[in-house]
Order: sequence, then structure tokens, then C-alpha cells
Amino acid sequence: MSSGKPLILFDPHPRTEAMVFTGDVAEALEREANLITHFGSRAPDDLVEDVLDDVEIIIGQTAMPKERLDRAPRLKAIVNVKANWEPNIDYEEAQRRGIHVLSAAPAMAPAVAEYCLGQAIALARGLPAADCRFRDGDEQYGIAGNGTAYSLYDAAVGLIGYGNLGRALVPLLRPFTRRISVHDPWLSDRFLQTQDVRPSGLADVLSENRFLFILAGATSENEAFLDAAKLALIPPDASVILASRAEVVAFDSFVEMASEGRFRAAVDVFPQEPVAAGDPVRKAGNILFSAHLAGGLEASYARIRDMMLDDVKQILRGLPPQRLQRAEPKQAAMARSR
Amino acid sequence: MSSGKPLILFDPHPRTEAMVFTGDVAEALEREANLITHFGSRAPDDLVEDVLDDVEIIIGQTAMPKERLDRAPRLKAIVNVKANWEPNIDYEEAQRRGIHVLSAAPAMAPAVAEYCLGQAIALARGLPAADCRFRDGDEQYGIAGNGTAYSLYDAAVGLIGYGNLGRALVPLLRPFTRRISVHDPWLSDRFLQTQDVRPSGLADVLSENRFLFILAGATSENEAFLDAAKLALIPPDASVILASRAEVVAFDSFVEMASEGRFRAAVDVFPQEPVAAGDPVRKAGNILFSAHLAGGLEASYARIRDMMLDDVKQILRGLPPQRLQRAEPKQAAMARSR
Amino acid sequence: MSSGKPLILFDPHPRTEAMVFTGDVAEALEREANLITHFGSRAPDDLVEDVLDDVEIIIGQTAMPKERLDRAPRLKAIVNVKANWEPNIDYEEAQRRGIHVLSAAPAMAPAVAEYCLGQAIALARGLPAADCRFRDGDEQYGIAGNGTAYSLYDAAVGLIGYGNLGRALVPLLRPFTRRISVHDPWLSDRFLQTQDVRPSGLADVLSENRFLFILAGATSENEAFLDAAKLALIPPDASVILASRAEVVAFDSFVEMASEGRFRAAVDVFPQEPVAAGDPVRKAGNILFSAHLAGGLEASYARIRDMMLDDVKQILRGLPPQRLQRAEPKQAAMARSR
Amino acid sequence: MSSGKPLILFDPHPRTEAMVFTGDVAEALEREANLITHFGSRAPDDLVEDVLDDVEIIIGQTAMPKERLDRAPRLKAIVNVKANWEPNIDYEEAQRRGIHVLSAAPAMAPAVAEYCLGQAIALARGLPAADCRFRDGDEQYGIAGNGTAYSLYDAAVGLIGYGNLGRALVPLLRPFTRRISVHDPWLSDRFLQTQDVRPSGLADVLSENRFLFILAGATSENEAFLDAAKLALIPPDASVILASRAEVVAFDSFVEMASEGRFRAAVDVFPQEPVAAGDPVRKAGNILFSAHLAGGLEASYARIRDMMLDDVKQILRGLPPQRLQRAEPKQAAMARSR
Repeated sequence: MSSGKPLILFDPHPRTEAMVFTGDVAEALEREANLITHFGSRAPDDLVEDVLDDVEIIIGQTAMPKERLDRAPRLKAIVNVKANWEPNIDYEEAQRRGIHVLSAAPAMAPAVAEYCLGQAIALARGLPAADCRFRDGDEQYGIAGNGTAYSLYDAAVGLIGYGNLGRALVPLLRPFTRRISVHDPWLSDRFLQTQDVRPSGLADVLSENRFLFILAGATSENEAFLDAAKLALIPPDASVILASRAEVVAFDSFVEMASEGRFRAAVDVFPQEPVAAGDPVRKAGNILFSAHLAGGLEASYARIRDMMLDDVKQILRGLPPQRLQRAEPKQAAMARSR
Repeated sequence: MSSGKPLILFDPHPRTEAMVFTGDVAEALEREANLITHFGSRAPDDLVEDVLDDVEIIIGQTAMPKERLDRAPRLKAIVNVKANWEPNIDYEEAQRRGIHVLSAAPAMAPAVAEYCLGQAIALARGLPAADCRFRDGDEQYGIAGNGTAYSLYDAAVGLIGYGNLGRALVPLLRPFTRRISVHDPWLSDRFLQTQDVRPSGLADVLSENRFLFILAGATSENEAFLDAAKLALIPPDASVILASRAEVVAFDSFVEMASEGRFRAAVDVFPQEPVAAGDPVRKAGNILFSAHLAGGLEASYARIRDMMLDDVKQILRGLPPQRLQRAEPKQAAMARSR
Repeated sequence: MSSGKPLILFDPHPRTEAMVFTGDVAEALEREANLITHFGSRAPDDLVEDVLDDVEIIIGQTAMPKERLDRAPRLKAIVNVKANWEPNIDYEEAQRRGIHVLSAAPAMAPAVAEYCLGQAIALARGLPAADCRFRDGDEQYGIAGNGTAYSLYDAAVGLIGYGNLGRALVPLLRPFTRRISVHDPWLSDRFLQTQDVRPSGLADVLSENRFLFILAGATSENEAFLDAAKLALIPPDASVILASRAEVVAFDSFVEMASEGRFRAAVDVFPQEPVAAGDPVRKAGNILFSAHLAGGLEASYARIRDMMLDDVKQILRGLPPQRLQRAEPKQAAMARSR
Repeated sequence: MSSGKPLILFDPHPRTEAMVFTGDVAEALEREANLITHFGSRAPDDLVEDVLDDVEIIIGQTAMPKERLDRAPRLKAIVNVKANWEPNIDYEEAQRRGIHVLSAAPAMAPAVAEYCLGQAIALARGLPAADCRFRDGDEQYGIAGNGTAYSLYDAAVGLIGYGNLGRALVPLLRPFTRRISVHDPWLSDRFLQTQDVRPSGLADVLSENRFLFILAGATSENEAFLDAAKLALIPPDASVILASRAEVVAFDSFVEMASEGRFRAAVDVFPQEPVAAGDPVRKAGNILFSAHLAGGLEASYARIRDMMLDDVKQILRGLPPQRLQRAEPKQAAMARSR
């Protein structure tokens, strides 16, 4: 390990080289550090063990239990370059050691928020159906064709979860409506009020809104907390966007209720991905499907690379990171793996 | 004609009773005025002639050439309750007489802007195609499925026309991008700069933007000003939303270029509506179609009723109208009928 | 009169050459038109009479009664380059003739709004008094010195008048508070609601706000409508900014009540200007005075020149003006001269 | 110590009971915890020692070196209820132990930002001077009296420091100008760009702006980093607001340069407070003085109480605090005591 430059382990799987280690990134990091890289799988144990003594920054969610942290005396930061946490890090021990543990969730959120807004307008205004009807020669013009259409303007909108996704979505909704309610059990009512949204209980956020965005992360404690009884509270014909994790809803019930026309739905996430070839969900009516496409486009990876480079440089200069998200040890430890 | 109350002629065709004369409107207007109403067609000449002596406000675009204006000494306002002007009014004579001539264009604009934004996200992010692929079992997940997707965030966006539609759309785009260029030959560069948009020549607005919104009204002078040569300036794979009037583009060329994959397109307006049953346009690929659905939903008519009631009351109190749009006599006279 | 260029009469008194006819303006206008200029007083009658036949645009508030308008067949616009109207134009006749009558009120409003905000913070936070106390060695530090200070954040704010001044002020207040009430008898409640302000009756706007901005223009009908009884409704210790015209308040009562400590006040306008040398108002306590300084600084005249040039060019091209304010004939005719 | 309720030590000096322990706070905290309070001085050592075993939250900046942290096994948070850090806590050890160390800096920032904006408008528009001249009968009206006035609209504005104060100030400046430059050596250029401000070197931020806000906190490393040579870069007649800590400038040079008319200044903070009775600074011309009044008004303490209560409740529920500011251990340790 030459030159007194700090050592960075680049172990970003499931992120690929194309996503997070483009030429500009490689060049910028090589100016600052010696790099050890591993792509295509998580770095094998022996590679990780080899670098523990010297590594200052790990990019990727390499398993770092306490016994490894104990042997990584120079480690300053773990940058997972993902939007969620895995349970393979001892978050509390990392905090004890003053190691920054950072996720790229803020980098993925804008793309997801954009997608959610597109889904919401598509559902409320009937965009894909209009195209089908026109192609079938079955269209009606103007208000005659808009019988079931409604608008986001001045609509009551509810968000379940106000983390990175919610915070990226609200600015996109503001030009349409001021009536934004949020349910988030991890945040206080007063905090939500300072964000100019209305704090709301779970039953209220479900029952009182024309648009409902499900943006909650999956934890070890909230699996299917939106069960059939809760989903039954959603008002008739509301537009419901399932954007974060399928695990937080009783998925089969959700699909069934949408199919039956209880509400309109957009679904981008599934309990198992890929969905089985013959899974009957593929035939469900009244749902706008997509295959986990909301966040993962090149623009999001560009944002990850930008935030990662920026914060790595800050950390190597002894300054606090500004752009990636810091792990809250308890909450990160509760996150469900994927 | 009892009671000294002012007389209002309600002749709103093609607006229907359900659109603009709901119970609350009838009740509110009857408190202020005597009403003569005619629905289902333009009011017949003899009905119009009968009321000319007394009428103070006409709601609808009743033909009002100079000879009728001459015989309507108490007329204070013509409120067309539509989004566009017809050539059946002598706009200059109405101005000479201090008669307010008002359109409901500002009431339709929000719904159109919402639709345009939904179309733009749908095109860039591939929303309807994703649903089809999932249903066909042909989906790919995450970035693998997002090969051609791009985002509005930080994108270069161009608007052709900055009337009511453009002014309603810009606030919806602001949370995504500051790079908004506008071409509008009726507005000065300095005015556009005060609106925090970049003034742009026609060739530049066509060639320099990833998203292009065609929002220009049709006049007697601008038919097909976006001809094939102009459309050829649009960058490859841009998303083009045709939202105002089909007449402003060389429609067949536009459809052909989109079909060939030169750009992505959303088309809500057609040279002839309804489109003929067997019109080959219905088979054109790479276009998201809709049947003039952008503006005409109940929410827009609610907005028309609200603005109309508000301004009628202002005018009856001798105050200037605030919410509907005033005709610019020269420009209104150039508007193409529909 | 050479060359077929249009003729512009430049008669801007009381605006001076330095205010509205700087080198760049002269050069820009000379490219478009032949100019006849008169500074230092209103143009003498014979000069005006000489140009009536040909003049297309008058810049300044030259007297234009009907008999002169009748003899000015080519006149397209009168641009008064001031913030208020005088009664020396036949506004209805000008409208009948399709002549644009335009004021520069929107150009003066930002500077006035900035001044009002500065006055409001100065009153609430005690800025000038703090300086005096420090210089006198009489200061107290921190909260001990802030006994009577209060803040604009989350405060209830009332505006009397929502013309150009109010519309320029509201965006400056928004980052502080959403609790903005407006009283304006010329505007409907619904219009004000669309502006995201709360419509308010006069008694309520006076009695319910911690900050009160008096922004109403003076008309022939509203002299001293804020009389002593009305002013008595203002809550104790509120901050009251008198910004538009002294004529709209019972000025002596206003000064007396402020002096007695009923409320804090900032006064920029006076019933007679200049104020007499020995006028006792100069000794009134509890008032922050200024000598009609809110609007008239070079930055405002730069804005007038910019708007004027822009709209003159539009009009000469046959396009509607966009930036200056159009006279509402009835309201303009009611404006009090100054 | 009854009931299994958690123990809170309330030791907020120099905050007083009136500032941070009002009736509503006492009541709310007593519902959640057992309270031990000490006001008027820092809690004596024996009182602190007595509670170490049990204390879960300390409110106030009680000295907490490592040896005390070692003996406080249940301690979850130290909430200093101040805007700055003192060196009497072992910040790194607290972090190692997962103890939240929180300051109330975000609560003081809005009041300071409001004051800064008021000072800036007062300097640029000459508010206090206008009052003096009017009272002396020496006023001139309108533009004649505004010879040296300038405006924030479209002005170039520079901020030195972009912590809580800068982040509270920028939204107040936005309605006036988009030309906001920031110098902050702890933040990356990319981060500042995401905040829609222009990153700027120190020399540039000093030399290129009409308004300059000095908002940097004092650290052990930046004393008087704005020395006479740096201050000489400020453009003639700029408005300079010294708002955070006097220690960051060469104070005597600053006062001298302002007095000589090199620039306009507002000064709220001093190297020694209180300033000595006969200190010649009190006679310095061209400066708007105040006695550390920008932040410390009742509205700020109300905000502190609100944030403190909110985050204490979060922490007692095992959730992360949301509203107060977390210490960055290295940066907090560098903070200069006051």
C-alpha cells in the first residue's frame, strides 16, 4: 500500500461497475486514494480480511459485524450506495467508533417521486386507458370521455411514510394542492407541522384521502401492517400508489381489492421479484404495473455517484458528510434485508 | 322583465347545462339577475334580438357583430365560458363600448397542465409500456428495464407558447428543473425573463430541449407553422407533447416522425375530431394518444363556474373582473374558430 | 417629421430626464420612432396641439380630454410613467378608441414593498432604538434588551389594499408567515382566496393583526376612511405601516394614537409634502418617519424605463403590452390627483 | 426516585427558568419523567454526581467529560438549549456511547435571520437616517432624498458561513434575488449547488457582493480570519452585516473601515459584552449597532422549548430526534466557549 494515500475498498454489489464506478469516478477517487475493487458479487472474506488493517472507507455494504470493526482501526466510513439498509453491519458498534455509515437513499428518492407523481396522474386522469380506447376506436372526446377522471388540484393527498421518498414527493405535489397529510410513526406531529404537512393517524390517512402514496420502508416490525381491514378504509375510487416495499401491505388483498374496483392502484414492487411467469397477478385489472422501475434509472446512479464522491472527499478531509444519509443505528438494524 | 334586476342571457352552447348551469350557479345568478337561458344549440336569432334592448351580460359566445352591439346599449360583458375565441364577435367594437369580453381559458389551463405533466413523465419514464410488458411477462426489473428511461429532473424543457397553458405548466415543472425555455412571438424577451424562463427563438426551442410542450393557440396566421422542416430540428428521442391545437403542426409529418422513432410523442388533439374510424393514425407507434381529454373534466367546469360567478358579480357591482381572461381585440379576432 | 417612423411625444413631468430618458432609452426609442421631448414641466398646449395629428404614443400624463383624443387619430398608447392616475385623461374615451392607457405602478411596487418589510422588522424588533440605546451607553444585552421585541414569523399580518403594493409585498412576507389577511373592497373573496390570502372585512383586518400594512390608493371616495374610530380597533402595540397615501387615514388621529403608544407606526407619506418646517408631527414619538422614500429610488426608475421600453416596442409592433398596468377606466377616473 | 419514570436533569444555565422551563414545559416533562432542576448557575458538582447513575437526559450544557460519561450508563441525550457548543463535553466519547448531543441552534436562527434582513434593508435604504433627518427638518422627498439608497432586488449577496443562520436567511432573501453566493470551508461546492446557491472562495465572496452577511461561528481555528487585508476587499459602499461572532473579524479594523465610510455596517456582536461604558466604538459612525439582540427574544425561546420537548419525547420513545441539531464531534470540540 504505497504513498500514504488512504485505502478505499470498493465492494458495491449489487451495484455494478457501470452504476457506481464509471471512468470519472475511478479517476476522481484514484486522485485521493488507493483503491481495491470487487464487482459482480460481495467481496470474498479473504479480500475483506486483507484490507481491514488499512481500509479507511468501504464503498458497498460489505458485512461488518463487530469483530471486523474491531480489526478496522482506520475505518472512517461505510457508504452502502443503496437506498436501504441490510442487517450485516453492527450499526451501534460503528457509531461507537465514530464511523459514518451512509446510504444513498436520498439519491434514489427523486426518481421514485417523479414516477409516483406520473402514476398518480395516470391513474386519476386515465392516461393509459385513453390510449387503448383511442387505438380501439372506442374513444369519446372531451368531458364525455372523462367520466371517471379526477384531478390532483386541491385534492386531499395522504402519504404513509415521510422518509426520503415522502420528502422528495411533497415538493412535486405542492403546486397542485396544500392538503397533504402524513402518517409516520417515527416522527412527531410537531415535526410534521414544521414541514407544512398535516400529521395524521393511520386510519385517518387511509380513509380521508383521494390519493394515497405508500412510501414506508419495510422493517422487521411492520410486515403487512396495511392488512385487508386497514385497506378497506380507503375511500372508493381513490388512487393508491404502492411505491416503497410490497412487504408493508397484505399484497394479495391489495391486488384483489384493486381488481374488484375498490380503488385504483399503481404497483411497482412485489413480494417476490421477479414475479413468477404464470402469477395471476399479471392479469389483475385496474392496476398500473411496473417492474421495480421507479428508482433505478441511470439518472439515479449519476446522483449516487455525485453524492458518494462528494461525501468521500469530505470525510477524507476530516469534515462531516453532507449529502448521503446517516444510519440511525436502531432503525437501520430493524431494516429488512432484500 | 320584472323588478329592475339586470338581465342575463345564458347561451353557453357548446357548454351544456351540466357544465355551466348547475343548481348552485342558477341559484346564485337568480339572486342577482333575471335569466333567459338557452341550451343545446346557440340561441336562435329571434331570442337574441328580443333581449338586446335590456341584456347586461351575455354568458356564452352568442354572435355579436357590430350591428347587434349597436342595439345592446346596456351590455356590460360577454363571458364566453370557453377556452378559445370565435370570430363571431366584433371585438374592437365591444372594446370601444367598454364591454368586457371574457374567456374561461384560465379555468381550463390547470387541468391541461396536469395532463401534460402526466404525459411527459409517462413518455420519459415509459409508464404505459411498462404495464404492457409486465402483463405480457416480458418485464425486466430495475435498471435493466429502464434502458431508455429518462427524467424531468434537471432536464432542458421547451415551451412553444406561453399563454394560459404555459403559465399553468411552468409551476408544475419548477420542482424538477430550472432549465425552462419559452418561444412565444407575442411576448418580449424581457417579459419572459421576468417570469424566470429563458426566451428562445423557434429553432432553438425545437432543437435544444429534451422535453417539448406545444402549447400555442391556433390563429389565422400560424397554421402548421411547425412544419416537417421545423419538426426535424427536434433532438432524437425527445418527448414532445402536443397539447393545444393540432392545426399548429403539420400533423401528418408529426405522426410519421414519431412513428419512425425520431421522438416520443403524446397527442391529445387532432385536425378533425372525432378521428375517422379507420384513420391510420390510430395504428401509429410511439405515440401516447388521448381524445381531447386534457382540459375537459368536471374539475375544469367547476373552475369555470366559480370564475364566471365571481366576475359576473364584480361586473354587476361596477367593478373590474379579476379572474377570467380579457380579450385582446386584435388577437381574439385572429383566433381560428373550431 | 421624416421617414414614416411613428411619432412619440415624451412629456413625463414630474418625472425628469434623469429618471426616464437616460441615454440608453433615448437611443432605443430613436431607433423605433421620431421623438418630441419636453422636460421640467408639462408640455405647453401649443406643443401638444402640434403633435396631435401624428402622435402614436404619449409618454407622460399629458392632459388628454375627449376633445384632444378626438384629434389624435393615430394615438395608440398613453404611458404615464407614474405609479398613480391623474384625472386629466378621459379614460373611457381612450378605451373606446382602443388606446392603451398604462401606468408604471408595477415598477414602483417592489421598492415600496422592500421598504415596508424593512419598516415592519425595524418596528417589531426595535432596530433604530437599539442603535440609539447603544450609543447612549444604555443598552441591555440579549433577551434583557428585547423586552418589547416581537417577530414576523408566524405573525398575523393584515393588508389594506391588494393592488400592486400588496402583490409585491406578499411574496416577501411568505417566508415568515402564512397568516396573511387582506381587505380590498374592489376584489372578491374568491379572488383573494386564489391568491392564498384570507379575505377580511375592514373591522377584522384592523383588529386581528399584529402587523398592519396600509397600502390603499387614495380615491375621490375613500378619503380618511380609516378614521379615529376605525384606528381604535388596532390591537395594542401592533406595528402599523402607512405606505400608500396619507389621505386614506385621519392623519392627525393616526399620529396622535401612535405617539400615545397605542401602536407602533412607520410613516412615509404625509397629507402635505413637504411637511412644514415647524409641524409638530416632527416631534411625534413612537413613529419611524421617512420622507416619501419608499418607492422613488434609482432602481425603481430603472424598472420604469425597462417596462416602458418593452411595452412601447410591443405596441409599435401591434402586440398587447405585458408589463405596465392598464387603466381600469372607472377606477382611474376616481383616482385623486396629487 | 419513584415509579420507573426516567430521570431528567434540568441544568440549563445561562438559560433561565423563564426561558426554558415555563409552566407548560414543566407539566409536559413531569408527565414523562422525574425532574431534577437547577437554575441560576451551572448545577454544583455534588448534584450532578448524585444523578449520574440514573440520569437519562440532561438538559443544559452540564460539564460531561469522559469520566462522568463513564459513570452515566443510562444517559441518552444532552440537550444544551443553546445555539453554540462549549468545550466542556467529551463529544467523541458521547458519540461512542450513542448519546445524542443536541443544540438549539436551529431554534435561534430564524430570529437572527429576520434581524439580519431588517439590518440589510435598513442599511441599503437608509431607514434610521431618514427618521433622524425628518425629525431635524432636514429631509428631502422622493428620489432627492434617496441619493445613496440601493435595493436588495437583484442584488449580489454573499454569505460567509452556511450553517443554521445561513440556511434560515436564504429563504428570506430569495424573493429579492437569485444571486446568492456562499463561502463555507466545511461544505463542498456540490452541496452548495444543490442548495441553489453559488459556492464562492473567500476573496470572491468578499469582493463581489453588494450585501455581505458574516454568519460564521467562531472556532479555535478561525479567530479574526477576516483581517484588515481581507476586509479591504469589500466593495465600496457595500452593506455588511456582522451577525454571528465578533471574534471572526479583526473587530477594530472592521469598525474603523466602516467609520471611514468604506462600507456600511450593522454590528450586533462584540469581542467583549457588555461593551465598556466609554468604549470609543460607541461613537463610530456609519454603523447600525445593537446589543446582541438578533436571536434572543421570547419567540426564540418558545421555539427552543418546542423543539426540546419534541425531541425529548422522541428520545424517551427510542426514536431519533428530528428538530434540534446534532453535534458533529470534531466540529463541536473546536467551538470556542463564550
